[in-house]
Amino acid sequence: MAACVFCQILAGELPGSFVFRDDRVSAFLDIQPINPGHLLIVPHIHAETLDQLSPDVAGHMMTVAQQLMMRLRETDLRCEGVNLFLADGAVAGQEVVHVHLHVIPRFLGDGFGLTFAPGYGALPERDELERVAAAIRDGQPTG
Amino acid sequence: MAACVFCQILAGELPGSFVFRDDRVSAFLDIQPINPGHLLIVPHIHAETLDQLSPDVAGHMMTVAQQLMMRLRETDLRCEGVNLFLADGAVAGQEVVHVHLHVIPRFLGDGFGLTFAPGYGALPERDELERVAAAIRDGQPTG
Repeated sequence: MAACVFCQILAGELPGSFVFRDDRVSAFLDIQPINPGHLLIVPHIHAETLDQLSPDVAGHMMTVAQQLMMRLRETDLRCEGVNLFLADGAVAGQEVVHVHLHVIPRFLGDGFGLTFAPGYGALPERDELERVAAAIRDGQPTG
Repeated sequence: MAACVFCQILAGELPGSFVFRDDRVSAFLDIQPINPGHLLIVPHIHAETLDQLSPDVAGHMMTVAQQLMMRLRETDLRCEGVNLFLADGAVAGQEVVHVHLHVIPRFLGDGFGLTFAPGYGALPERDELERVAAAIRDGQPTG
């Protein structure tokens, strides 16, 4: 198994531009930023996906994101809004297989956004939504 | 000020297909799902943006997302990966002005993704990253 690049950054074996570090989580700059100030919140423990993290560390990632969003707004970086983004699994766009939460400063006309499948925008009937909700609530098949 | 649609759903004044509820946070289905099972994690307190939430509630949103991601995988809904997404501020794509974290089940070829500005992909020099990191760390101007 190849060494994890985020573990190497956390260990100081590869360069990282850190903005935060405590006992459980660090934050450093994305080397390919969507906008200047684009941060990654990374747990110290090597977990590939979010289900492998303790709830404590997962929750802490969000409180650190919240704190750093406020910090971003105190700088002169353009930050008129923020997106938080996490990709869990390759199909979701995860590239580095060590859990990380993106904190992306946003400004008007920055060109970043979401794309949707051609059929997107349909509003399912409430019956259909209830059927799906019941499946998730109760772990039953939707069918 | 118009009534908040999420506050109305939480109060039972508008329909919502709930999958989770505790003392601080609820989760219900997005009425315009990107994929079936697309959930919103919504704090009970009316906060417009993440900086208005207590760290406790912000962190709890993530632990609930983590829990529901695992629940999604126990259903027969297609869920080969998951994206978490939060839009903080209109420029970041926030439409309902009450904090919410999207939990989006993903599968191969579902057509959902990110778009970037034409210049995206550049790798800034380490000096530049360090300058930005210092600004965020210390609240100093980047200039």
